[in-house]
Amino acid sequence: MLKGIIRGNIVSTRKQESLVGSKFMEVEIIENGELTKKYLVAVDSVGAGIGETVLVTTGSSARLALHNTNAPCDAVIVGIVD
Amino acid sequence: MLKGIIRGNIVSTRKQESLVGSKFMEVEIIENGELTKKYLVAVDSVGAGIGETVLVTTGSSARLALHNTNAPCDAVIVGIVD
Amino acid sequence: MLKGIIRGNIVSTRKQESLVGSKFMEVEIIENGELTKKYLVAVDSVGAGIGETVLVTTGSSARLALHNTNAPCDAVIVGIVD
Amino acid sequence: MLKGIIRGNIVSTRKQESLVGSKFMEVEIIENGELTKKYLVAVDSVGAGIGETVLVTTGSSARLALHNTNAPCDAVIVGIVD
Amino acid sequence: MLKGIIRGNIVSTRKQESLVGSKFMEVEIIENGELTKKYLVAVDSVGAGIGETVLVTTGSSARLALHNTNAPCDAVIVGIVD
Repeated sequence: MLKGIIRGNIVSTRKQESLVGSKFMEVEIIENGELTKKYLVAVDSVGAGIGETVLVTTGSSARLALHNTNAPCDAVIVGIVD
Repeated sequence: MLKGIIRGNIVSTRKQESLVGSKFMEVEIIENGELTKKYLVAVDSVGAGIGETVLVTTGSSARLALHNTNAPCDAVIVGIVD
Repeated sequence: MLKGIIRGNIVSTRKQESLVGSKFMEVEIIENGELTKKYLVAVDSVGAGIGETVLVTTGSSARLALHNTNAPCDAVIVGIVD
Repeated sequence: MLKGIIRGNIVSTRKQESLVGSKFMEVEIIENGELTKKYLVAVDSVGAGIGETVLVTTGSSARLALHNTNAPCDAVIVGIVD
Repeated sequence: MLKGIIRGNIVSTRKQESLVGSKFMEVEIIENGELTKKYLVAVDSVGAGIGETVLVTTGSSARLALHNTNAPCDAVIVGIVD
């Protein structure tokens, strides 16, 4: 997993049917407590908001965190760091 | 997912049978609103065009956005950013 | 796999149901005996602790090391290096 | 997918049984029309030769382009760019 | 796949049950005939030794080269380069 901080949300009206309702967040990756200026876009699955530190799962494993495990999604926020 | 801007299309006449009809786009990745000069090639699934900002899913999850989920494809444009 | 040293643990109270009980560790990757200042977060499956040198499996293969192979996890500590 | 140019072929006599007959090519990745000096090794599936510009699919999706979809292969040349 | 040279072996006594008997090798990646100073750890499946140039398959495809295709392994040496 990657640790990161949610920097913003991304709105996409025209998208794959199976992604309708997904909340896309832009996450800046944190390594060893330091911001990396590397970013990815993940779908939220735990009710996380902008500014929160989260754990992101990538790859095909990410889909297991979604209601629709057949959605074409490769990154999901799976936890909020205390 | 990755956010990016479509920079061009790529034409391939001789290709895998299952990719016939696929529209290949070269996408420049955007992180935190800045161009990265990093690129990948993705198949369009949402009718996106050159110059549009899009979301790209990579890896095996990408195939779930295609009509033929057995096509040897590892990156698909799954949404257009508003 | 990646070789690395466990630098710390990460606590996440609000997380995906299927990750409850997982021990998240931040691991610094080692290449050729040298620290790389690159980090990832992995779930422990072998009772490893902070400061130990470990092997980490990433991607969908990682889940095969977990009791719940359907957990949305993409990195697992699978061995402790002697 | 990645766009690249085939730079050479790699000969491996002792290899996994299921890879016998595979043509391994070393491909230099091209991004936005520029050579990147980044390389990977891919199995050819479309009759491509040295010097040709090609599309490469990576990850588990790559295997879908092979006759033997159980071969331990993570990168396949799936198209020749016109 | 990646081309690389085997630099050493890694011993792990405490590891996942399904990895017992696996030979872990540290491999330095070679691109275009040049050493990259980038390394990964792969399980040998072809009887390769230190100093040999090999092909490494990564990701979920790697497991197809193992006797136990359910082992939590993400990189396997699948061929020795002549």
